[in-house]
Amino acid sequence: MTSPAKTSSVRNRHEFTDALKRGLYEAIFRRRDIREFTPEPIRDGALARVLIAAHHAASVGFSQPWDFIVVRSVEARRRVKEIFEQERAKNAAQFTGARREKFLSLKLEGILEAPINLIVTCTPERFGPAVLGKTSIRDVEIYSACLAVENLWLTARAEGLGVGWVSIMRNDALAEIFGIPDSAIPVAYLCVGYVREFPDRPVLASAQWAERLPPRSLIHFDTWSKEGTPDEPLIEKIEDPSIWLSIFPEDSPDKSPSRR
Amino acid sequence: MTSPAKTSSVRNRHEFTDALKRGLYEAIFRRRDIREFTPEPIRDGALARVLIAAHHAASVGFSQPWDFIVVRSVEARRRVKEIFEQERAKNAAQFTGARREKFLSLKLEGILEAPINLIVTCTPERFGPAVLGKTSIRDVEIYSACLAVENLWLTARAEGLGVGWVSIMRNDALAEIFGIPDSAIPVAYLCVGYVREFPDRPVLASAQWAERLPPRSLIHFDTWSKEGTPDEPLIEKIEDPSIWLSIFPEDSPDKSPSRR
Repeated sequence: MTSPAKTSSVRNRHEFTDALKRGLYEAIFRRRDIREFTPEPIRDGALARVLIAAHHAASVGFSQPWDFIVVRSVEARRRVKEIFEQERAKNAAQFTGARREKFLSLKLEGILEAPINLIVTCTPERFGPAVLGKTSIRDVEIYSACLAVENLWLTARAEGLGVGWVSIMRNDALAEIFGIPDSAIPVAYLCVGYVREFPDRPVLASAQWAERLPPRSLIHFDTWSKEGTPDEPLIEKIEDPSIWLSIFPEDSPDKSPSRR
Repeated sequence: MTSPAKTSSVRNRHEFTDALKRGLYEAIFRRRDIREFTPEPIRDGALARVLIAAHHAASVGFSQPWDFIVVRSVEARRRVKEIFEQERAKNAAQFTGARREKFLSLKLEGILEAPINLIVTCTPERFGPAVLGKTSIRDVEIYSACLAVENLWLTARAEGLGVGWVSIMRNDALAEIFGIPDSAIPVAYLCVGYVREFPDRPVLASAQWAERLPPRSLIHFDTWSKEGTPDEPLIEKIEDPSIWLSIFPEDSPDKSPSRR
């Protein structure tokens, strides 16, 4: 006979030790979208590990649809920056008043400051049109390429490297500047480099552009509708501060952990 | 004066310790697409951490476009399984001969065996049509939802949980079964649960469906074309077995690390 408390502390045999879990959680909760870089060159070993990790993401039918363009050319990046500026003006025009002022005050890229930029593309038909796992959902290979981006981003954080995704961009311009063929879709334009600081909170949270949404608003059970459903133990668990102590045991239960 | 060897061992101050890096790398290289589950229920603490980690992915304009539907209903999953079977037949029809035989021999989901399924959706216009970071690239919020999937997948691995992405699916059917509104796009249908084994290699590699591509074929410098470019030190670094020893120091340099 074991007590419930004891039972719940029994580890699954595939579960990582707390020390190993911590490494993953540090990467996930300390990852930031970075727009300020130091000019320090990236060590080849760090970049090698980042790219290998990206290449080990899941992909539909093991299609590995990604390519990576390492962009060091300042001339190419100047052209990219021009496109960014044109698109940024369009983006600003979508907002009005104080919101637009705030938008215009934000630094949204580090294209020229970062020692390198990285383009992640997706070639859906690398092995032909038939893909194991692809039937009615059109963009499954692009989803795979995004998984690679997250591996890249988390690994970069562990290597001390910041990553900033510049989504204010035009894919036709990227294709022209870098000679990307029609068979490949640019998915992510990333600035990568060492940083002075990894901010404690996302920049857009500190700037009061948006707030982190409460998890309970995003979690549904068996159906989208939340009408008439009682509180689930899972939601209580997520909202209990002790869940953060299970990730970062040194956090004080009196204050919200900074990673929120 | 420092020797080059000494200089290269100086850590960037934001770089993780080797012990912390190891936790992230274990998750990345030991993650697998899982189709066989044990019926053991998932502990609320583990699932809470997995969902919190997913919710801390990057998102364009901090739009947090994801929702998570925890599916426990066997009835709903039976309906999903029917759709899967119809789509699987379509997928099989895309292959011929021995390739089709192999396709039909593969187990591609654990919809009913897994204790839960998880649906990750994307609501692009959660805060209205204007999104900071969105101009000419249409699906940026979906890319964000995919980043959340990878956080979820890696965290699940650390918690001892397997995840299998069922992309052989129809989104209109999912919308109907789970009452997902038109404003939300189903992005990932996942089976989640404890497993008997995390295979050493991807199932589709062991089944000789596909091989891991050589990294050099996927990495470009400044332009897509690889014509006339000499070998880059980065490529040499990636292909040198010592890069694997920097991730998993106990691996023998005489054999390919199993994570490849």
